[in-house]
Amino acid sequence: MARDLDTECIDACHACADACDRCATACLQEADVKAMAHCIELDLECAAICRLAAFSMARQGEFAKRICALCALVCDACGEECARHDHTHCQDCAAACRACAEACRRMASV
Amino acid sequence: MARDLDTECIDACHACADACDRCATACLQEADVKAMAHCIELDLECAAICRLAAFSMARQGEFAKRICALCALVCDACGEECARHDHTHCQDCAAACRACAEACRRMASV
Amino acid sequence: MARDLDTECIDACHACADACDRCATACLQEADVKAMAHCIELDLECAAICRLAAFSMARQGEFAKRICALCALVCDACGEECARHDHTHCQDCAAACRACAEACRRMASV
Amino acid sequence: MARDLDTECIDACHACADACDRCATACLQEADVKAMAHCIELDLECAAICRLAAFSMARQGEFAKRICALCALVCDACGEECARHDHTHCQDCAAACRACAEACRRMASV
Repeated sequence: MARDLDTECIDACHACADACDRCATACLQEADVKAMAHCIELDLECAAICRLAAFSMARQGEFAKRICALCALVCDACGEECARHDHTHCQDCAAACRACAEACRRMASV
Repeated sequence: MARDLDTECIDACHACADACDRCATACLQEADVKAMAHCIELDLECAAICRLAAFSMARQGEFAKRICALCALVCDACGEECARHDHTHCQDCAAACRACAEACRRMASV
Repeated sequence: MARDLDTECIDACHACADACDRCATACLQEADVKAMAHCIELDLECAAICRLAAFSMARQGEFAKRICALCALVCDACGEECARHDHTHCQDCAAACRACAEACRRMASV
Repeated sequence: MARDLDTECIDACHACADACDRCATACLQEADVKAMAHCIELDLECAAICRLAAFSMARQGEFAKRICALCALVCDACGEECARHDHTHCQDCAAACRACAEACRRMASV
């Protein structure tokens, strides 16, 4: 059971990290990059902690749950910022962030 | 096309990093850890470069192909070492390494 | 001021990540690896979050302080485990963990 | 000897990753972000491989030299791009990239 929950959350973290990485790169290619600066910053923060969370869960690390709890907060912030922009990459990223935040909260509360 | 190939390779890198992380942790819990030391070392090296490769591909990084080419070599080495051990986690890791090495070589040669 | 504190903490995180990485590798070469398994696991967890903390601080990330707060807890756990072993690499790592935990707490409380 | 060379190169990698991270964040705050997009992309690529190289060297990883060889190429590219911009953070980053490229080449050729 716990294993299944782990696997789901690891997958959500990978998907979110990818969406953030893609969003950051696409934001840099938008006409008005300036308007996307905060989004890019949060994409980088979010992708990095998602990768750490996946790494910790895959190793069954002692701090995996606490890392997931913090990861959920970063996903919330990144998802909210992305949701404010109409670009497809931002909307995709917002959805990935929401899914990952939810999966991380489930993990953190087991 | 290129995008599809990217996505496949990113997924293979994530799967391989997970398999390596799980294998390293499981190796540390084996009765004869000493015999698994080299396997653990390669698991760590392999997981780390797989994560870098995924990160670079998702950002369409300029060096993504070269990173994939090197990642394939690390996957080869890790897969060979894992294949020598009968533990399920080692065999699973060997399979993930082989699949990732192949996907990385395809990416590197586009 | 803030910048100076950042820089100090980033340096402490780098030093701690290095000490953890070196300790993990040296533990794998000890005669009784089995006895070092927990130490290795915590070394990996600690090195990874130290690197994330450094990355977030260098970017002035919005979650840098919260990441530092969590990093301090991981450093505490890793430092306590390392302190229980007489190997030089463990004692070195314990000292680096203590210094990093302290620097991270200062950052987190600014 | 080898250890000393390692330590020097690890330090150069950490310094370069920090400079790249700081440069990326500062670029996002420049008036003309658009002009800095390529610089930001290379900063991210460079910081990530510098961290991987440091991680591999600290663990005495089997692929440390090959990772350093590739890291030197990324540092070259990032350093050249940064050198084209007058911002202090770009010039600082260019210097860190050059020093890191040199240290990585020394490591790779041992």
